[in-house]
Amino acid sequence: MRNRSKAVELHERFNGKLSIESKIDIQTEQDLSLVYTPGVAEICQEIEAYPERVNTLTSRGQTVAVITDGTAVLGLGDIGPKAAMPVMEGKCILFKKFADLNAFPICLDEKDPEAIISIVKALAPTFAGINLEDISAPRCFEIERRLKEELDIPVFHDDQHGTAIVVLAGLYNALRLTQRNPKDTKIVINGAGAAGISIARLLLDAGFEHITLVSLEGVVCKGASWLNEAQKEIAERTNKNLLQGTLDDVISDKDVFIGVSGPNALRPLQVKRMAKRAIVFALANPVPEIYPNDALKAGAEVVATGRSDFPNQVNNVLAFPGIFRGAIEANATNITIPMKLAAARAIADLISEEELHADYIIPRSLNQQVSYAVAAAVEQIAKEGAENDAQS
Amino acid sequence: MRNRSKAVELHERFNGKLSIESKIDIQTEQDLSLVYTPGVAEICQEIEAYPERVNTLTSRGQTVAVITDGTAVLGLGDIGPKAAMPVMEGKCILFKKFADLNAFPICLDEKDPEAIISIVKALAPTFAGINLEDISAPRCFEIERRLKEELDIPVFHDDQHGTAIVVLAGLYNALRLTQRNPKDTKIVINGAGAAGISIARLLLDAGFEHITLVSLEGVVCKGASWLNEAQKEIAERTNKNLLQGTLDDVISDKDVFIGVSGPNALRPLQVKRMAKRAIVFALANPVPEIYPNDALKAGAEVVATGRSDFPNQVNNVLAFPGIFRGAIEANATNITIPMKLAAARAIADLISEEELHADYIIPRSLNQQVSYAVAAAVEQIAKEGAENDAQS
Repeated sequence: MRNRSKAVELHERFNGKLSIESKIDIQTEQDLSLVYTPGVAEICQEIEAYPERVNTLTSRGQTVAVITDGTAVLGLGDIGPKAAMPVMEGKCILFKKFADLNAFPICLDEKDPEAIISIVKALAPTFAGINLEDISAPRCFEIERRLKEELDIPVFHDDQHGTAIVVLAGLYNALRLTQRNPKDTKIVINGAGAAGISIARLLLDAGFEHITLVSLEGVVCKGASWLNEAQKEIAERTNKNLLQGTLDDVISDKDVFIGVSGPNALRPLQVKRMAKRAIVFALANPVPEIYPNDALKAGAEVVATGRSDFPNQVNNVLAFPGIFRGAIEANATNITIPMKLAAARAIADLISEEELHADYIIPRSLNQQVSYAVAAAVEQIAKEGAENDAQS
Repeated sequence: MRNRSKAVELHERFNGKLSIESKIDIQTEQDLSLVYTPGVAEICQEIEAYPERVNTLTSRGQTVAVITDGTAVLGLGDIGPKAAMPVMEGKCILFKKFADLNAFPICLDEKDPEAIISIVKALAPTFAGINLEDISAPRCFEIERRLKEELDIPVFHDDQHGTAIVVLAGLYNALRLTQRNPKDTKIVINGAGAAGISIARLLLDAGFEHITLVSLEGVVCKGASWLNEAQKEIAERTNKNLLQGTLDDVISDKDVFIGVSGPNALRPLQVKRMAKRAIVFALANPVPEIYPNDALKAGAEVVATGRSDFPNQVNNVLAFPGIFRGAIEANATNITIPMKLAAARAIADLISEEELHADYIIPRSLNQQVSYAVAAAVEQIAKEGAENDAQS
């Protein structure tokens, strides 16, 4: 309860978290006439003639939009655009701190996917990149897919890819520790919403072959009647043994449990039935699928959560700032799978062989080196991609 | 030409004019957990329960959108949203400097008025006020009217009202100097676009009765075939003698010329034909309808322009920051005619009887007192209005 009042106090005292400041001081009327009329007309004409100059002559080239419709905010659900604002502002200050990018929160009073797509497209002249946030599944998949296709700036739904990238980073290190390889590792993902499906997709892209998803309706299996479009698509690529039932029916002998579901969804007895040296990522917040101590006592060797007060926090702040920084530095028009894989590898590699330990498979969230490493990796891949495109 | 490179240099050196900063420093993981997940969830729930708290718990209550579609940027015309960005950024830093408000530029890649209205409505949860900017006439009238009706936050198309308010302020002082009253003063407005029509409307609201507008097509007269909707409406309320022809046909004996048209549109010989002690506001930028010296030599007593290098600059920076500040402080849902009239009076009254002079009828653009005086006047009127509404 102490934290309760602390958060409110802090937000109240500062009236929110963002301030929009001028980089140029206006002291004289000449200053005024340079930054505003009439002097600014020349800058406009320069951009009209050479549109790409907008990124050097205005803040646009350093500015990212953090856009939500407030339909899936944290674990709170559809709380609407105004109530979503504190999260978006929080995200914006993380963009500044970790990537030195301007980020501005846009909370839309609009839920229709087509309308959201139109709005974001209309907003694009103002931004160098679009971070979609807390948009409910399965709408978020179509919205992101279309925007990626139709815009020439990076579009990234962080709830899908941010978590997935950090999960993959943690998994790379957990596999190193427990001497497994992606190809043979058997994974169950509990939760088949935006995060669960996106984790599955990225793990498939990273070479994992044995993945089973479980939703509240049951195991995601080809042919199940309740699958939405995104689940149907992932059902084609996972659960090759066509298992059915619940989490309990599929947990035996699995090497890895990844929970993006809810409190206490994984029981100690279930951990006991997993393979030896089991890896448990219990990412529900604030109450995880299983508390680390309980998982360890039940035989897990590596445990990660979404919380900062336990070891191995899966926090997407490790991914999104560096990814946007790298993509923007490279003038990338898209954030591609190779860029995401490179980001995960860069996060994992920040922990050396000597440092690697069951309690330290993921760098700390405030480690400033992470975003630099991610940005460098993403920028390099983006530039190689551009070269390959140019050659082909 | 020296200014040319100076403006470009300045914008290039700083990569634009805006920086989005965090008001809260994140040093520890506890800090992070208060401004972002999981602590921020409580702030979201507080706003979900009490939506008006969004204005104290987030930056929303101090943040204005500066929105354009890039169709009528300065005198440059339809240069598009990207090329409009430098003007919008300039406006944003003026909001900060003069009203201590956050302002963010939104340059829309969308020209359809209905679509623009929908987009701005969808953006409203993010902002405490909407400053529309550089949207071409007559589209701007409908867009503003609808948004004022449909949103519960202040909406203000600065090209219409900002200039009109400062013109009225200058006019109040010019009339004081030349001992005229609004009722009997004969005015010609050259230019019947957004600015000209809005000036006419505000002058009518302020009690002026003899106004004639002139456009490139000719004198705005009831029944003329070429009038657009906004011109038709203003034709009903002006030019009661149903004059026709061109500026030259209506300039004789006029007390006041207000030009929002183009370079050299008023000739010295025409000034000579105006009433004695004539008042000339030649506001075209950068080349006015007539240069001050030429107007004075031809017999004008008071001359204002849009330029900072001549006396009496009509600069809307005198109006918009204080107007938004006052409206937001008063929690006003609208910017009303009485608020605009009060703003004009507050600007005029900053010049005392002793200071008043033909070369000093309008405060200097960088005078910080102006926005405070305007904000106070607007806030008072807004609160009185709210009381009246509550009583009726």
